[in-house]
Amino acid sequence: MKESLKIIILGTSGGIPTVERNLPAIAIKKDREIILFDCAESTQRQMGKAKLSVSRISKIFVTHLHGDHIMGIPGILQTLSLLNRNKPLYLFGPNGLMDFITAIKKTVEFTLTFDIYVKEAAEGVVYETNDYYIECVKTRHTNSSFAYAFVEKDRPGKFHPNKALALRIPMGPLWKKLQQGETITLSEGRKIEPSEVADPPKPGRKIVYSGDTAPCESVKKISKNATLLIHESTYGDDLEEKAFETNHSSASQAAKIAEESSVQKLLLTHISQRYSNPKELLEQAQKIFQNTIIAEDLMEITLD
Amino acid sequence: MKESLKIIILGTSGGIPTVERNLPAIAIKKDREIILFDCAESTQRQMGKAKLSVSRISKIFVTHLHGDHIMGIPGILQTLSLLNRNKPLYLFGPNGLMDFITAIKKTVEFTLTFDIYVKEAAEGVVYETNDYYIECVKTRHTNSSFAYAFVEKDRPGKFHPNKALALRIPMGPLWKKLQQGETITLSEGRKIEPSEVADPPKPGRKIVYSGDTAPCESVKKISKNATLLIHESTYGDDLEEKAFETNHSSASQAAKIAEESSVQKLLLTHISQRYSNPKELLEQAQKIFQNTIIAEDLMEITLD
Repeated sequence: MKESLKIIILGTSGGIPTVERNLPAIAIKKDREIILFDCAESTQRQMGKAKLSVSRISKIFVTHLHGDHIMGIPGILQTLSLLNRNKPLYLFGPNGLMDFITAIKKTVEFTLTFDIYVKEAAEGVVYETNDYYIECVKTRHTNSSFAYAFVEKDRPGKFHPNKALALRIPMGPLWKKLQQGETITLSEGRKIEPSEVADPPKPGRKIVYSGDTAPCESVKKISKNATLLIHESTYGDDLEEKAFETNHSSASQAAKIAEESSVQKLLLTHISQRYSNPKELLEQAQKIFQNTIIAEDLMEITLD
Repeated sequence: MKESLKIIILGTSGGIPTVERNLPAIAIKKDREIILFDCAESTQRQMGKAKLSVSRISKIFVTHLHGDHIMGIPGILQTLSLLNRNKPLYLFGPNGLMDFITAIKKTVEFTLTFDIYVKEAAEGVVYETNDYYIECVKTRHTNSSFAYAFVEKDRPGKFHPNKALALRIPMGPLWKKLQQGETITLSEGRKIEPSEVADPPKPGRKIVYSGDTAPCESVKKISKNATLLIHESTYGDDLEEKAFETNHSSASQAAKIAEESSVQKLLLTHISQRYSNPKELLEQAQKIFQNTIIAEDLMEITLD
């Protein structure tokens, strides 16, 4: 069984919030950890509505430094301090993120109870654990804007002890190596491949979040075969010119990226406040990429 | 008839938001102008829910620089710029408010389309028009925390032309002076008092907002005979010790201020997130000051 992995969409408007849509933030809940991607104002309250505890936030990945993507960070810092957090918080984002945090710490009156580590990101893998890594690429929005991919590592297939016993492999460290996908050599010189005693490795899932961007090659590339692509779709096709001028994407442009990178599912978000019912955006995208849905605030996605 | 004056309570929690209560902000809608007192994160979205246009905000008065009272300002600056505002915005608050705005302008990427004027407030009248003035006093919360009083000036009573004609006062500038409450002297030396030709002046209304504070004399003094006192009540009487330690007030302490300053009505706000149903706070206050209500998000108060 794969481990628990949920995506909770906390805000789906772009630029200006509406009554129905808060500004951008996405939570990935992996086991007991919550990872945020962007953190608009009121993200902490949206988390409350989604029954997600802010105390579980371990890391925040920021796509770019426009106010509608970062102004929820200071409030979360204050709330975590009021809750006496002591474990550190990790922030990742473009050049200038450190300046923003420093400025907030200097000019807003509150006492931090925990350490903040800021890593100003460059393209490539920005964070890695045994289970997953997070990679980023530059996008076409501001001078320093990123898309992120959350990539689970492949996990070893089910191990079959009866097969190992039948092959006369002594129980112990050699079993463990095979379970971890390593080929082993027995004392008599015989080689055993993991595939002889275990099911094939289970491929990890990949979730890509475009942040704000005009359609671009780097997002297409990092989205290759993604389980889920969360792509901005600020405008409908009627406003592709405006999208071009402001470095945003239309619904069809997002769908084309999804189609060309062979993702399994596309989620459109960062919807301009002018679309009170973005059904037209969905229809435009589905003409190009059928498995498209439109993000709604507090939508929860569980990936198979 | 008095002019339209509405108070809309945009956020009523203290420190940490809840699903039901956003963080502090109060709007006073006077004619076509909206004046904000404090501006927590997501205030712009609360305004949307209250059907108040952010474009109408003329001035923001900040009580103190804790994050839960100011973190909505940057988002409003960005939104107003996206809406191409060109008229200036006026901000008033404690020392350090200018530094906060400067820091945001430097570290958050957006292009302001309008001028911002910041006035770091001291005790006394901080702003005045023909119709009203806003006065502030220091409170007992941080080194630089304020309470504000919005005070309508008394308005001339109804003018009776028939009385003016009967007294043989020539129509024109002299009528205007009488209408404005001035005593006049006719060319033959006869003096006319405004009360001879007009109803008595209509007293203005006074709304006081305590911001965060332990019970204090300055708030009591500025609240004298107020139409409405909006006083923080972070805690119930059970936690008066905690209120003392953190420079906040209990429900009973707020009620005592209301009673001793002879206000007409008391509104309790800034409720700690631990009180999911603050009925007990209301009961505690009403034992001391009967005309008390508890603030709820988006509550609208129209003053007679």
